[in-house]
Amino acid sequence: MNLLILKENDRHNDLFKISGDRFEHLKNILNSKTGDTIEVGLLNGNCGTAKLVELSETNAVLKILDLTSPEQQKINIDLICALPRPQTLKKVLSSTAAMGVRNIYLIRSEKVEKSYFHSPLLKEENYTKFLIEGLSQGKRTMLPKVSIHNRFKRFFEEEYKMNEDTAYLLAHPDGNSYLTKQQINNVKNITLAVGPEGGWNDFEVELMVSLGFTKIKISESILRVENAVVAVLAQVELSIQ
Amino acid sequence: MNLLILKENDRHNDLFKISGDRFEHLKNILNSKTGDTIEVGLLNGNCGTAKLVELSETNAVLKILDLTSPEQQKINIDLICALPRPQTLKKVLSSTAAMGVRNIYLIRSEKVEKSYFHSPLLKEENYTKFLIEGLSQGKRTMLPKVSIHNRFKRFFEEEYKMNEDTAYLLAHPDGNSYLTKQQINNVKNITLAVGPEGGWNDFEVELMVSLGFTKIKISESILRVENAVVAVLAQVELSIQ
Repeated sequence: MNLLILKENDRHNDLFKISGDRFEHLKNILNSKTGDTIEVGLLNGNCGTAKLVELSETNAVLKILDLTSPEQQKINIDLICALPRPQTLKKVLSSTAAMGVRNIYLIRSEKVEKSYFHSPLLKEENYTKFLIEGLSQGKRTMLPKVSIHNRFKRFFEEEYKMNEDTAYLLAHPDGNSYLTKQQINNVKNITLAVGPEGGWNDFEVELMVSLGFTKIKISESILRVENAVVAVLAQVELSIQ
Repeated sequence: MNLLILKENDRHNDLFKISGDRFEHLKNILNSKTGDTIEVGLLNGNCGTAKLVELSETNAVLKILDLTSPEQQKINIDLICALPRPQTLKKVLSSTAAMGVRNIYLIRSEKVEKSYFHSPLLKEENYTKFLIEGLSQGKRTMLPKVSIHNRFKRFFEEEYKMNEDTAYLLAHPDGNSYLTKQQINNVKNITLAVGPEGGWNDFEVELMVSLGFTKIKISESILRVENAVVAVLAQVELSIQ
């Protein structure tokens, strides 16, 4: 935990009271003591420091010392990801939150098992924990918005809005070329699409390409979904410098 | 599994007989049937296809159909990694093997818990499985060489040989700049150093920089070790195009 994320409902007047996972981590992993200064971030808000004013057996109380606005991201990044199996999804949620993704669209693809759409993890009260873990790891405060779409064609034709200022990139092992700076020059947003284990099928790739997605190659190697997501986000971050 | 890795000791004359994990995966996950053509790679050797000639309750027998040399990598990539906790090490071994790393040096750093050096995972007979999984995922056959070094200073001063044709890059959150193509122009090898959770300490960074390592930033975000490794390998792969 590199940043303790505080939520609005932790607030009691000018103090924040936390329990559960975050409290356990503070007490048992970081061995924080009363009086310590802790790096904190308000969920969807500012970052700064807080003083640990009370530490009991079950909760911790913090008082904000200072807060400043986090630096604005140059470019908004959204991820369209074929819904992976739950264990992989946890990693994807955590690393995308850590790396500053704004919207995560979890969509159907032929090679996505239908049962994945019935996973309890897809409930907001269950997946939010992994997003917060990611923010805490990556030292960020903006909670990504997650939406779930169980029909591929309907997602692209009805649910998803494409727009002008966006580069649409489709990570694909058969992509002829790697990401270039030119592809993301002057855009305000980048939308990345990452397929399921086994890849998108031909129909899916053709539909996305017809809508304006460009195929890019991330690696000579076939990567696991959780690694493909990190790899493409890292390449985008390098390329927008 | 994108490539079934076959080992010399699976060979019986011109047939290969496999059991255990690889057999289970072939039979139960891929639902392979007798007569199927399977993509195979000989460990540290060529890639090609094989015919599944026999499938019993406990093993599978394959006959090679054709083999060709895999494409030579443009640049050799080595990784120096502060030894992570065992669960993280499994992921690091698997993804580095998948992404074509040649040598993996697992070293001590102040923030590495000493107990990690006593993990049974550090025995070759235990960690090789994760390397093979990575090869199988990444469609590669060259098994990375792993070595373990429980003293930081001794590693750099006595055990590790630095040479001329190599770019030495140290992934560091305080790095002033991201990787540039110039940094890896005309080199034959790239050695990447990735620190522990919590980072290298100042002494460690200074020693590496004094030896010729250049600090590079991978991301604005603080990444988990397993993600930092994938991120920097992906950025290197993009930059050598």
